[in-house]
Amino acid sequence: MTEAWLDEIRWTDEGLVPAIAQDAETGNILMFAWMNRESLALTVSEGYAVYWSRSRNKLWRKGEESGHRQKLAGIYLDCDEDVILLMVEQMGGIACHTGRESCFYRQLLDGKWLTVKPVLKNPKTIYQNHE
Amino acid sequence: MTEAWLDEIRWTDEGLVPAIAQDAETGNILMFAWMNRESLALTVSEGYAVYWSRSRNKLWRKGEESGHRQKLAGIYLDCDEDVILLMVEQMGGIACHTGRESCFYRQLLDGKWLTVKPVLKNPKTIYQNHE
Repeated sequence: MTEAWLDEIRWTDEGLVPAIAQDAETGNILMFAWMNRESLALTVSEGYAVYWSRSRNKLWRKGEESGHRQKLAGIYLDCDEDVILLMVEQMGGIACHTGRESCFYRQLLDGKWLTVKPVLKNPKTIYQNHE
Repeated sequence: MTEAWLDEIRWTDEGLVPAIAQDAETGNILMFAWMNRESLALTVSEGYAVYWSRSRNKLWRKGEESGHRQKLAGIYLDCDEDVILLMVEQMGGIACHTGRESCFYRQLLDGKWLTVKPVLKNPKTIYQNHE
C-alpha cells in the first residue's frame, strides 16, 4: 500500500501528530496520545492502536501489558490535517491506567476537579496479570 | 472563585493545553484546538468556548464571526492533567470552517483520505452574514 496518505498529515517538528481515541460503541472519549509516522502505519497494518510514548521515547502498543488493546474501527483526519481521530473497540472496557473506562474522569464542578467516573478494576490487578 | 483548578493543569512550555470539543447531544467529536490559561478561564466565566489561536496568536472566541458558538455543557480533565475535554452544545450544528458539523470529516479508506461527511452550509454564506 502506498504511504501517500501519511504524507498528507502535517506532523509537528518532532514528527508527531495528536490522536484522540473514541469508543466506537458508546461514543465516549477514551484518551488522548501522540503518534509518529511509524506508529500510525502500524496502527493501520496491525489493526490495533499503536501510539508513540513521549515519556518513554518508544512505540507504545496500547494494552500490551494490560490487555486493554484498542481494536481499530476507523481513522479520521481533521480539516487542518494535524489531528487524528481513532474510533476503537476498547478491549475490557478500560482505557485508563487508573482502571477507569476513560482518562477524562474528572469534571470541573464549582471550581474544583471532581472525580465523576468509577474505577472498574484495580490497577494493581490489571498490570500483575500480564507480562 | 479561586483559580487553583487552573494551577492543576500541566501547561506546555508555551502555556497551552490541548482541548477536544465533543457535542454533548450526539457525542460526535467536533474539533481540536488549544487553550491558554486566560482562554480557559474565559470559557468558564462566559459559558462559551474560547480558544487560543496559535496561528493568529490571539484569543479566539469560537463562533464570533460565524455565529457557530459552543455553549459549555461540561469540562473534563484527563489523568495526566494535560488535556481538556469540552462538552458543548454546538450552535447551528456546525463546528468546522468548511461548513461541516465536525472537522474530522475525512476517513482513511483503502489507503486514501476520503470525505465522508457533508457540507451543511456554504462557508461563504457562513462568514458573510456576520461582522
